[in-house]
Amino acid sequence: MTITIIGLGLIGGSLAIALREKGFAKNIIGVDNNPNHSEKALELHLVDKILPLKEAIVLSDLVIVAIPVDATAAILPGILDIVNLQVVMDVGSAKGVICKAVKDHPQRSCYVATHPMWGTEYNGPAAAISGAFINKATVICDKTESSPGALKLVEELYHLLGMHIVYMDSVSHDVHTAYISHVSHITSFALANTVLEKEKEDNTIFELASAGFESTVRLAKSNPKMWLPIFIQNKDNVLDVLNEHISQLKKFKACLEKENYEYLDELMINANTIKRILK
Amino acid sequence: MTITIIGLGLIGGSLAIALREKGFAKNIIGVDNNPNHSEKALELHLVDKILPLKEAIVLSDLVIVAIPVDATAAILPGILDIVNLQVVMDVGSAKGVICKAVKDHPQRSCYVATHPMWGTEYNGPAAAISGAFINKATVICDKTESSPGALKLVEELYHLLGMHIVYMDSVSHDVHTAYISHVSHITSFALANTVLEKEKEDNTIFELASAGFESTVRLAKSNPKMWLPIFIQNKDNVLDVLNEHISQLKKFKACLEKENYEYLDELMINANTIKRILK
Repeated sequence: MTITIIGLGLIGGSLAIALREKGFAKNIIGVDNNPNHSEKALELHLVDKILPLKEAIVLSDLVIVAIPVDATAAILPGILDIVNLQVVMDVGSAKGVICKAVKDHPQRSCYVATHPMWGTEYNGPAAAISGAFINKATVICDKTESSPGALKLVEELYHLLGMHIVYMDSVSHDVHTAYISHVSHITSFALANTVLEKEKEDNTIFELASAGFESTVRLAKSNPKMWLPIFIQNKDNVLDVLNEHISQLKKFKACLEKENYEYLDELMINANTIKRILK
Repeated sequence: MTITIIGLGLIGGSLAIALREKGFAKNIIGVDNNPNHSEKALELHLVDKILPLKEAIVLSDLVIVAIPVDATAAILPGILDIVNLQVVMDVGSAKGVICKAVKDHPQRSCYVATHPMWGTEYNGPAAAISGAFINKATVICDKTESSPGALKLVEELYHLLGMHIVYMDSVSHDVHTAYISHVSHITSFALANTVLEKEKEDNTIFELASAGFESTVRLAKSNPKMWLPIFIQNKDNVLDVLNEHISQLKKFKACLEKENYEYLDELMINANTIKRILK
């Protein structure tokens, strides 16, 4: 099968590696408007060749869109305009706006909306790794809007990558990811800024940083070019969760201010129940 | 050398393993008021025997206090009352209150206040691991209050564990750890509670949890018995940082509410500079 991957970054690149390793892709065509990424992707043999968007689509059986969610929403209708028998999927971290952008497109059924729940704080083709998606969840949204054939191909692809599929409507997806992904990024960005602000008056503040700090702050290294459009598209949900999170933090603050240590203990004991989820 | 370790948990147990492996400890005596921990520590051969506190101290060259910081502040003066030639060190995560508790003790110079910057979210003797402290920082506080001999022994110990030593007064230590350790724990506890709260109305909310969520939330598994006393002892600094962190989060919130995406982008670009610190 010939596959076009639009966007040769962390996700597009890691998909290229996995799909080639699994024999799912015979030829991989890369499309990227960043010449450095295109060159690097060829050099790393993530893709067999680089072509302009339209030429690539015409030659392909499957088109994977792996670019920031604003760009995805912008180009997806145009891609569907020119597909014939091709299946199109995207991998964006917010799904509502993208699905709305193609809702009434006559070729909507060629498209499958997906979101593999894997990533790192690094980006670009050099960040792509082998074995990236194994044992992770992936979401397929609004599956009844896709044709059975398109859906089947995408399901096969994800099973081959070792992922388990969660089906969800795109609106629910955006609520869920606000809670278990988007807000984590905001807390990391904000925590990094908290300590960086302190560094202005005390330049040794990071001297004692250890694994606990690194763990809570590593997502602050994430690429704003990817995350800004996600926060914009999922603004309302992210704001809801952010408000809830700030009020949870204020509970800790109030406990300390009022020396209500019994309740502080309760808050931590409650948080400990996360062990059910994270082993 | 005979070493007594008071508190056979994650840190006490991991120190026991390392000090035995390095040949620094010939005999290790354990003291723990939890009989299950004592039994487990013997079973895992973390310690050679379990003795009551006073008997253990008399037989030892070095006494390591590795219990919660409130208990440390409570028993340390009594330990110094009975030491003769022994060196005493603690490993607590807050240092101000503990150092104040022994400030005017006639045997103060036998004591070295330390804080090895390593830990995990697990606790108890079964959580102890080999190779725990290698390449991490450790803090020695108020070093001029310790005798040259006591200081030298503790420095040797930490060098043997592969740690690099940072010297700091106990007041500065507590400011620094509030920023790069204590507040990370509060954000994790609060983030866990944020999502657990949502789970009450949507029991599939954790279905999509992936590595990013796990990274920011794993500290929420930490033991409240250890952390409550730290937050109490370091209350003022923790409150300062928590206030700063909440105001950083409110900047993200305001950007979203006001659709000020240029500033949101700036906030993330600034947070990205944490790459200087975390490779």
